[in-house]
Amino acid sequence: MSVTTKATIASFGGKLLKLSHAAKSTKCEMNFNLYLPPQAASQKVPVLIYLSGLTCTADNCSEKGFFQHGASKKGIAVLYPDTSPRGLDIPGENDAWDFGTGAGFYVNATKAPYDNGYNMYTYVTEELPQTVFAAFSQLDSSRVSITGHSMGGHGALTLFLRNPGKYKSVSAFAPISNPINCPWGQKAFSGYLGDDQQKWKEHDATELIKKWKGPLDVLIDVGTGDNFYKQGQLLPENLEKAAKEAGVEGVKVRYQPDYDHSYFTMATFSDDHVEHAAKYLLQ
Amino acid sequence: MSVTTKATIASFGGKLLKLSHAAKSTKCEMNFNLYLPPQAASQKVPVLIYLSGLTCTADNCSEKGFFQHGASKKGIAVLYPDTSPRGLDIPGENDAWDFGTGAGFYVNATKAPYDNGYNMYTYVTEELPQTVFAAFSQLDSSRVSITGHSMGGHGALTLFLRNPGKYKSVSAFAPISNPINCPWGQKAFSGYLGDDQQKWKEHDATELIKKWKGPLDVLIDVGTGDNFYKQGQLLPENLEKAAKEAGVEGVKVRYQPDYDHSYFTMATFSDDHVEHAAKYLLQ
Repeated sequence: MSVTTKATIASFGGKLLKLSHAAKSTKCEMNFNLYLPPQAASQKVPVLIYLSGLTCTADNCSEKGFFQHGASKKGIAVLYPDTSPRGLDIPGENDAWDFGTGAGFYVNATKAPYDNGYNMYTYVTEELPQTVFAAFSQLDSSRVSITGHSMGGHGALTLFLRNPGKYKSVSAFAPISNPINCPWGQKAFSGYLGDDQQKWKEHDATELIKKWKGPLDVLIDVGTGDNFYKQGQLLPENLEKAAKEAGVEGVKVRYQPDYDHSYFTMATFSDDHVEHAAKYLLQ
Repeated sequence: MSVTTKATIASFGGKLLKLSHAAKSTKCEMNFNLYLPPQAASQKVPVLIYLSGLTCTADNCSEKGFFQHGASKKGIAVLYPDTSPRGLDIPGENDAWDFGTGAGFYVNATKAPYDNGYNMYTYVTEELPQTVFAAFSQLDSSRVSITGHSMGGHGALTLFLRNPGKYKSVSAFAPISNPINCPWGQKAFSGYLGDDQQKWKEHDATELIKKWKGPLDVLIDVGTGDNFYKQGQLLPENLEKAAKEAGVEGVKVRYQPDYDHSYFTMATFSDDHVEHAAKYLLQ
């Protein structure tokens, strides 16, 4: 459970820590970043987990997403996990940018050879937070929210919907909202979970929301200039439709004119997503 | 004078344009970025020029400096020039990261072979703004301020001090404040300007400030965790001392505890620098 500090960087009055630890669930050394806001010097602070998208590491959003700006003002820590195991030397894991390395899809793989380490679901929901809360006593393990981008938006939505009560709130940027019906999701779930498409549904936000009981308050931003949205990889309308048909209220998708799939979009709206999390984390 | 638009990216309610043009002064195609705040859709807006540091292009600060955040609120355009000519094929220009490509130092080279195109002083003070104002009628050429980082902080200070009245205000992050007395500056000035050190002084902020007449209001941020500051490449104390001895008031250097030389520092304080410029640009 020990954590190695690779860098400590001053950012918006707090500290961005570049960290790593030997993870059992993913069978490798995992890098992650943790932003401690200035308030963490004198009090317990809640945590917002940010799950990154395809090809990204913990660094991309730390540098370009601007979450530290809002988190610093609100007194919220931000935890940035990596997007897959690294260096497992599974044949083929580095052959594509949308599968394998950098593309763990926040599931536990059940299909060989990826079942040997591609357990990003367990890693993000259990091992990483346990490690972080053990190492940083200034974090409040009872107040955790989750957000993410693209594949990480899928991760945020599905982890929230599969674990009622675990996270205080959820939001997403350009989430892969219905992976069983888009090329990215079909490729990933086929490779990680095998051919039984019933199993895929357990990791599909549009399927999961049909079973949701109670109130919901999900903030989602999707840019209308996002090429992956236009190509049908994101399908937020399917999530909205499924929620509506199931009588689940509170799925708010904002279609942001002209915004694309890049970190410029996250930078523009990250304050809103921190604000959304703060409503629940700072009650 | 024609400008090619390579990308239009939505950012903080406005547009970040990635542009290029055939520059006469630097004898090559030059890339640059221009952020148009939302206010530019309906009124003339002033311009803040941001000069980048060693190795950077126009993209680094556009992605990681978060000037767009403050500029969007204030209604100020941000112009991000490149840091040197590109692809001139001068022997040796790509051999070092602190000289040649990506390291033009905002001077007009007088020494062969760099005198054939390394004219970043003329490019930034004349050709680029003329090109931009001709292409974008929503920019107000009578209201221009300047800022920059490291080598670009040197550029901002020296261009401002050499051209009284040309810029409404100046600020800098971690500027190379006394280049004639630091390794970076000595290498660059020797290579671009030759051995006559009297000529070097014409591009040294600490020397130029001794001759300044009238009021001055310079905002400078330097991180105490900045390794280049510790190594004596920046020497802001020399600038402060020269100003004081010359009776020039208004040089405000903020030594920011623990902050380093990276864009995390710019991101943290860019709002302050936009605010500083806005005091003069929005009068």
